[in-house]
Amino acid sequence: MNSNSPRRDVPLPQAYRLLNHGPTVLVSARHAGRSNVMAAAWAMPLDFDPPKVTVVIDKNTFTRRLIEASGTFALSVPSRALADATYAAGSLSGADHEDKFTACGLAGFAAQRIDAPLVEGCVAWLECRVIAEPHHHQAYDLFVAEVLAAQADERVFANGRWRADAPAELRTLHHQAGGAFFVAGETVQAVRPAG
Amino acid sequence: MNSNSPRRDVPLPQAYRLLNHGPTVLVSARHAGRSNVMAAAWAMPLDFDPPKVTVVIDKNTFTRRLIEASGTFALSVPSRALADATYAAGSLSGADHEDKFTACGLAGFAAQRIDAPLVEGCVAWLECRVIAEPHHHQAYDLFVAEVLAAQADERVFANGRWRADAPAELRTLHHQAGGAFFVAGETVQAVRPAG
Repeated sequence: MNSNSPRRDVPLPQAYRLLNHGPTVLVSARHAGRSNVMAAAWAMPLDFDPPKVTVVIDKNTFTRRLIEASGTFALSVPSRALADATYAAGSLSGADHEDKFTACGLAGFAAQRIDAPLVEGCVAWLECRVIAEPHHHQAYDLFVAEVLAAQADERVFANGRWRADAPAELRTLHHQAGGAFFVAGETVQAVRPAG
Repeated sequence: MNSNSPRRDVPLPQAYRLLNHGPTVLVSARHAGRSNVMAAAWAMPLDFDPPKVTVVIDKNTFTRRLIEASGTFALSVPSRALADATYAAGSLSGADHEDKFTACGLAGFAAQRIDAPLVEGCVAWLECRVIAEPHHHQAYDLFVAEVLAAQADERVFANGRWRADAPAELRTLHHQAGGAFFVAGETVQAVRPAG
């Protein structure tokens, strides 16, 4: 699967565009030989350059333990082809599954800058290093991180833009509730205001 | 326009669903007789019940001054019909326009719980009270707020769910960059995992 995904590096000042339109993401991390992955609808960019992101990671998740121990995590942006796997990643717990990747039908591959698995078959990937904000973590489960590297599937995102001609199966997912997702639809170009 | 929009109250525990799929929002506020509106792609839910949201509001925006002075803001979720107006709201500054609503082709109507204009023609609305987090504001332009009231256009969101049969013009916008938006497309229902 990995070999079929034509990944290209995304320049860091454009990395925010991978999340700007609000896709649901897969959050993955590794520590002491144990990896895990979870789904998160609550993730967004926080700054342009250097790029930062913020994501809500509940205290009860196994992934959070790995993130707090390692100080890093990856965000992978799943497409329609991974809707069932994404829902599974949001429903099962790594505390109950020794290998949650396999339990969800997912596979990981090596990141460039951090020791965490990126998720195969996704269309964009961001490698993140946590910025220590203990109050954010404790009060709101909110993690702020700097983006160290970003990649995208060039069939979907190229030259800094999401492609309007992306194949249907590679369009991003936007979770509503209970496993119902909007798929990103057509692109409309608004008219720049005169004033 | 307002009279054509069949608004219904959304129970607060379901309010997160209005933002869960990552739509671009309009942020509006009022203080001392002055109102303003801006666009924000960086907004998301932060908690379920009581519902909280978080949104990035740059220090240079006029809307931020009104929010800091009033302690409240509204999020309105624009639809495809408002793509040009949303782009205008993200491009023009209230510092240069005495009445930015009119400059953007937008109109406001009264909120239920706060003194800030909700945006007519949108499909969902959240009324928010800022939770004082000065470090979040200063370091990251990040505002956390409690949702006090929520409404939605019942043609688009009913019984706690986004409707898959919503009219094309009323589907939500998801900003990519430079005025290009994804429109929310079809709904896919993922299969619940067995494990």
